[in-house]
Amino acid sequence: MVSTFAIKVAAATLGGICLLSIGIVIGRFALAPDLPSWLQSMSSDGNPSNSQRLMKEIQAENIRKNLEFFSKKPHIAGSQQEEVTLATHIHDTWKEYLDGVRIYTYNVLLSYPNASDPNYVAIWQENGTETEQSSKKEKILTPDQDDPTVVNPFNAYSPAGDVLGDLVYVNYGTIEDFMYLTRNLSMNLTGTVAIVRYGKIFRGDKVRNGETYGCAGMIIYSDPADYVVGSNNRVFPDDWWLPGTGAQRGTVLFTIGDPLTPFYPSIESAYYLDEKEIQLPLIPVTPIGYDDAVKYLSKMAGEEVQSTWQGKLNITYRVGPGFLQPHEKSKIKLYVRTYNVKKPIKNVIGFIQGNHEPDRYVVLGNHRDAWVFGAIDPSSATAAMMEVSRAMGQLLKDGWRPRRSIIFCSWGAEEYGLIGSMEWAEEMSKILGSRTIAYLNVDVAVEGNTSLLARATPILHNLLHEASKKVENPNPEEIAKGRRMVYDTWLATNPSAFDPALPHIGDLGSGSDYAPFLQILGISSLDITYTYDKSYSISSYPMYHSVYETYDLVSRLMDRDFKYHQAVARLWGEMALTLADNVILMFDCQNYAVMLEKILASIKTSYGTLLQKNGINLDDVTKATEEFKKAASILHKRIEILDIKNPLDVRRVNDQLMQMERAFIDSLGVASNPSVRHVIYAPNQHNSYASSSFPGLAAALFDIENQPNQTESWKKVKKEISIITFSILSAASTLKDVNDIGGL
Amino acid sequence: MVSTFAIKVAAATLGGICLLSIGIVIGRFALAPDLPSWLQSMSSDGNPSNSQRLMKEIQAENIRKNLEFFSKKPHIAGSQQEEVTLATHIHDTWKEYLDGVRIYTYNVLLSYPNASDPNYVAIWQENGTETEQSSKKEKILTPDQDDPTVVNPFNAYSPAGDVLGDLVYVNYGTIEDFMYLTRNLSMNLTGTVAIVRYGKIFRGDKVRNGETYGCAGMIIYSDPADYVVGSNNRVFPDDWWLPGTGAQRGTVLFTIGDPLTPFYPSIESAYYLDEKEIQLPLIPVTPIGYDDAVKYLSKMAGEEVQSTWQGKLNITYRVGPGFLQPHEKSKIKLYVRTYNVKKPIKNVIGFIQGNHEPDRYVVLGNHRDAWVFGAIDPSSATAAMMEVSRAMGQLLKDGWRPRRSIIFCSWGAEEYGLIGSMEWAEEMSKILGSRTIAYLNVDVAVEGNTSLLARATPILHNLLHEASKKVENPNPEEIAKGRRMVYDTWLATNPSAFDPALPHIGDLGSGSDYAPFLQILGISSLDITYTYDKSYSISSYPMYHSVYETYDLVSRLMDRDFKYHQAVARLWGEMALTLADNVILMFDCQNYAVMLEKILASIKTSYGTLLQKNGINLDDVTKATEEFKKAASILHKRIEILDIKNPLDVRRVNDQLMQMERAFIDSLGVASNPSVRHVIYAPNQHNSYASSSFPGLAAALFDIENQPNQTESWKKVKKEISIITFSILSAASTLKDVNDIGGL
Repeated sequence: MVSTFAIKVAAATLGGICLLSIGIVIGRFALAPDLPSWLQSMSSDGNPSNSQRLMKEIQAENIRKNLEFFSKKPHIAGSQQEEVTLATHIHDTWKEYLDGVRIYTYNVLLSYPNASDPNYVAIWQENGTETEQSSKKEKILTPDQDDPTVVNPFNAYSPAGDVLGDLVYVNYGTIEDFMYLTRNLSMNLTGTVAIVRYGKIFRGDKVRNGETYGCAGMIIYSDPADYVVGSNNRVFPDDWWLPGTGAQRGTVLFTIGDPLTPFYPSIESAYYLDEKEIQLPLIPVTPIGYDDAVKYLSKMAGEEVQSTWQGKLNITYRVGPGFLQPHEKSKIKLYVRTYNVKKPIKNVIGFIQGNHEPDRYVVLGNHRDAWVFGAIDPSSATAAMMEVSRAMGQLLKDGWRPRRSIIFCSWGAEEYGLIGSMEWAEEMSKILGSRTIAYLNVDVAVEGNTSLLARATPILHNLLHEASKKVENPNPEEIAKGRRMVYDTWLATNPSAFDPALPHIGDLGSGSDYAPFLQILGISSLDITYTYDKSYSISSYPMYHSVYETYDLVSRLMDRDFKYHQAVARLWGEMALTLADNVILMFDCQNYAVMLEKILASIKTSYGTLLQKNGINLDDVTKATEEFKKAASILHKRIEILDIKNPLDVRRVNDQLMQMERAFIDSLGVASNPSVRHVIYAPNQHNSYASSSFPGLAAALFDIENQPNQTESWKKVKKEISIITFSILSAASTLKDVNDIGGL
Repeated sequence: MVSTFAIKVAAATLGGICLLSIGIVIGRFALAPDLPSWLQSMSSDGNPSNSQRLMKEIQAENIRKNLEFFSKKPHIAGSQQEEVTLATHIHDTWKEYLDGVRIYTYNVLLSYPNASDPNYVAIWQENGTETEQSSKKEKILTPDQDDPTVVNPFNAYSPAGDVLGDLVYVNYGTIEDFMYLTRNLSMNLTGTVAIVRYGKIFRGDKVRNGETYGCAGMIIYSDPADYVVGSNNRVFPDDWWLPGTGAQRGTVLFTIGDPLTPFYPSIESAYYLDEKEIQLPLIPVTPIGYDDAVKYLSKMAGEEVQSTWQGKLNITYRVGPGFLQPHEKSKIKLYVRTYNVKKPIKNVIGFIQGNHEPDRYVVLGNHRDAWVFGAIDPSSATAAMMEVSRAMGQLLKDGWRPRRSIIFCSWGAEEYGLIGSMEWAEEMSKILGSRTIAYLNVDVAVEGNTSLLARATPILHNLLHEASKKVENPNPEEIAKGRRMVYDTWLATNPSAFDPALPHIGDLGSGSDYAPFLQILGISSLDITYTYDKSYSISSYPMYHSVYETYDLVSRLMDRDFKYHQAVARLWGEMALTLADNVILMFDCQNYAVMLEKILASIKTSYGTLLQKNGINLDDVTKATEEFKKAASILHKRIEILDIKNPLDVRRVNDQLMQMERAFIDSLGVASNPSVRHVIYAPNQHNSYASSSFPGLAAALFDIENQPNQTESWKKVKKEISIITFSILSAASTLKDVNDIGGL
């Protein structure tokens, strides 16, 4: 017989076991986290509040102080101020803000005018006397320009020499301009001195064109047509337009990186070529302002120029050669004492260590060296970069750590030919090529206050759009019009010709430090600046590379409260944050497909008939583009349904996104030029500043109908089409499922 | 007042809550796994039993059947048997065994002798008659060689032509041999026909040397000294030595890949160069056997050769030029009708999808095309590869799945110049370069039964050692001596000269399909074969590329029970399994440091004094090697303490290990030759079969004291040293902590 007590005990025990079991089940399955916390963090985007915290942290007043500091003194590459004072300052600052900092030094070829024997231009008379000498330095207009370390106007890497020759005017010195004189006007330019105006193309290309056409020397001047707007002739210091006493410095090197060590870094163990073994400009060249230029241009003989060649000096522009009477026997004289010298330059590299993927780098870069005070180029962006780094440092102190590493780069000797960035890209090529997510460049943060100007590889367009939608508009008038964000004014002032619902984003040429990243390493890149009113139709911001590019100019006439600087810094920081923190990279391959289609359509429009006439079609490249488009679309669909809890699945698709751009690199070089390797976008053959789409094909088609050997020329076209087709297929292969290679 | 009932209820409830809570705590903390099961699997090496299962699954009898099938008929590249029957067979078989299979087709330039107008050599007499014609085909010695699709002996890509000239004997046709005749004997070789013996160097280099020294044609014969051992003259079919009727076919192309599309794949959209635009051999060349060779060599005039030039024909070897009387006015005649033709070739690619890292590829490869029956080269390895793939397929069916993907490659047209593998490496370069762990090649599985022969990049030496320790010795006599494993006999018969405690592993030249992987893409590679007794001092296995390389030869005289084939297949499978399944790659960077030190020491021994005399030291490269060594050592220490539960930490170090070899690739090419890009190991400049350490430096130093411009020559040496130094530093940078770039 069983006692009720025993029954009760049994029931209680049973109940207890039940409860314990239920508890265990709840504990095991309902309450235990699916994932350990480190894995949870690994599969989460950064906290959205980080973006607001970063924006808030980036403050205009700090940028103003930075700019005042960085542009106080001239800081040309190789100078004490640049390579010691500023480099050390950035090093020490980043040591405080960031996780680490390192200085990379390279011994490279630089170039300077001789301070005690300055360059000039003059009219040389038969009797040997010289008149109308150009000014040897820019006039000091306000006391802040008066610094003993200002370097006089010159073109870097010009050979020294005395040139006497007949003056010819060749407009902007483009290849078409030279062709016009020699073909249409049947002029022979051998031994002449060309005077060309700044603008339209990279000045180094002007010099190379001059060499090609036999010129013995070149003068490059700034015409008011390209640097002054408005009828009242108000110029600096009253307005921001270029005064006649200002001249534009700048390199005329055709190549990028230290010319003594092509494609290898100028490290201690480097092998240096002799100067005579390398590609340097061959003819003496020097820049002048328009107060000087008018003295020569006004006396020129020859035909009157066509209207498109007409500048805004109050003279009759003539092509030459030589001068009108009574100067008809006079020559122009070029006196150049510019010299080359090997000097150490420095890159300062600051580092924030990534949390989960320290081996993935988001790289921000800006150069540090300026021709003179550099308050716009580059110090407006240096000031912004220092503030972005400070703000991120503050977030770090508050406990933030990005998923991926962030690298800040302060480049040396960009102005001479992207030397600091190129040498570093060469030295670090293997690790940068395999680890870098993107390179975000700002050469100039603020060159105007109208709208954002952006250039980017298509895969980053979406990032630019999205980030600019999050940055407050720096212009209160625009906000009043309902354009609250940077994006809104950008879209309103500069819609894409291709798709007016989106703001215009340009292609990347070779004008700044993104070139080594994009062109040599195949790293997706972008460059941003706040720019002036496009309707000005000027060649650059007026004071570009002159002594008047000062803190006074910026703070008094361009961005009084530094709100535009702040907006650019915020945009830059926001993009870096997004790339560093999102689990899935904000990369848009589908837009690359759209852009490829756009290029193809434009080639068909421009060359379709001509190609057809020569038995060439674009079927293969069209098919390849379709294959790329399909692969991009499928990848994005795969990403949408991806289980982001699996870190290796995430890494796999991110690697595909990261490496796609690498597939457009042809290590043999575009049109056999190994310093230009991106098959889709590369510097224009005749203008390194600009970008050329399908550059190999563009070069092959250029002026093709006037080439002597038509069979050979058309073979080249076919070869380039085949290379483009293959590159697009290769890029498509990187986007396809990784099992596709094996037929799955 | 509280009733006892209420107290009891309260107590029970409390007890229940306690029990429930205890249960929850147990469930939550004691029973919930630390890691979800997928993560557990992600951080575990493959089950060790897989290795034994794979070994057991790989069976000699299956390989025997495979070899019988693959070598039944001639299967030259471009033939029906090769490109249709065998390619389809492999495709269909892999479709059954593996997860996926795909055929990649390329349209490439091949070369054949004219079957109806065969090549020959003869003595041409003054009166125009021809005597002593060489045989136009190899004699059929056993019925199995009698097949209408046998292609007569020829050298691929030889131009067609009739050549009459004085015969000169140039030993092996090495550059030193040619230098000896022209320098020491002051002979002028212009217009002569060189007869050279096979061996020592790649035959294409013999032809190139002949061209360089002005020869008008070349005959390449097999001397018994290099292909017959033993005094009793027993040859095939009685023994495995080469009979006098056998001749060695082979390509004499200097480049790798389809010569019509250098560096781009021969896909549909390819641009094909004209034959006259490409580097093809310029002089007619044909191979003969020693029964024919003796007819010409025995009649030669000129000085008697030095002892090292003496072959084993029973004649007096003389250098020529021309013949002794009564033939002194006779010439040698070369009649070559070899022609080039574009044909489709196929690679068959089979695929096993990786479980956790499908985007990491372990690649196994072997070529499919043979000059004739190819029972050794390549079908011994094809037979082995098919068995490895079957065995892995069986493991898959039993539930195994590797961590990383495994790719099987059956290459077309290797014999012509690594064409199939090179075209695929070109087409897939971007994804292979970023995703491939290693390339494991077997060109010939069994060419003898004495010991393993291995060539590998230093990072894979340890893998080879460890895997060969796990494979049972195929030789019972060796086992009886206590050498139980393949490793034991390997070590006993071929210890490393550098470290006798380890077996010798050679360097990789350009003799097989690993060249595109290692030289173009920088993928760590190896090649294995079971070889014959080294003491034979023969130039290759005797029947190499002759019609006698049949199943009968292999199964009767070389590997009767196919145990050696089985051992190679097991070793191959074991290495693939280890690389595919281990969480951390079995890669040994520290051994690369050891090998770099070894190369440096050997250069110091050979050239130290000469370098010093010319003011050159090796301090920079020595320092770079020390830096590499340190980085390798630190990386391996980091790996030892790595938390392998974190998949991204694991991926990071594996990526470092995988990418290290890539850093040795110079995309500009070694000594400006873009088909040779590995700065540490590349094909020897004068012998593509062999490897040269520091190949750029070796080329610069070669014969330097006799170069006309000493200043320029020594500049080149300096440049090469600087490139090697930089490459080693670059490789070191890939091994350093990924935060090192930012000064952490």
